[in-house]
Amino acid sequence: KGRDMEDPVPFGMIGKMKALPGKRAELIAILSSGTGAMPGCRAYLIAEDAKDPDAIWITEIWDDASSHKASLQLPAVRAAIAKGRPLIAGFELSVETRPVAGSFVAHG
Amino acid sequence: KGRDMEDPVPFGMIGKMKALPGKRAELIAILSSGTGAMPGCRAYLIAEDAKDPDAIWITEIWDDASSHKASLQLPAVRAAIAKGRPLIAGFELSVETRPVAGSFVAHG
Repeated sequence: KGRDMEDPVPFGMIGKMKALPGKRAELIAILSSGTGAMPGCRAYLIAEDAKDPDAIWITEIWDDASSHKASLQLPAVRAAIAKGRPLIAGFELSVETRPVAGSFVAHG
Repeated sequence: KGRDMEDPVPFGMIGKMKALPGKRAELIAILSSGTGAMPGCRAYLIAEDAKDPDAIWITEIWDDASSHKASLQLPAVRAAIAKGRPLIAGFELSVETRPVAGSFVAHG
């Protein structure tokens, strides 16, 4: 089992970000670089949509909403946002979630 | 950093499952119980949608498509599917993804 999540319910997000055509790889590199060490972040998972060549899926799990909010002030994150924003066409989907205790089974 | 994913690109899925009204918690318990130890599964993350009371988000990362496919034959998974199916109203979204190397930063 992964980290015990019996303490307050963590904060999560799932988003489908659309890159400008041909810019997905560059945007993913920026996202990966800026999100390496963020206090309170349990998972920041970036994936390409296998069918839509411009779409990027991001699944996030945070200890709580405040650690997520604080991350937006981190220099590395602010730099990544500034660098990445011109490559973003938009968000097709962005939802807040409540990761379920005990389901974070990060094997391997 | 999480597990190194330089080897073949892993297989991923993201889905938004809708439970029958009032059945989400029961369905989540079934999903959690059946997905504890699946060979080749790097992450099976279950989260409630914070706004939609019937919606469940599932983010999966597998070593490859075949380990995902094989999991559907595991007794515990088959039992969970059989038990959970009557509580599922449908899937609003189900996409295949390619988790990006280096982004699996399972902190904490």
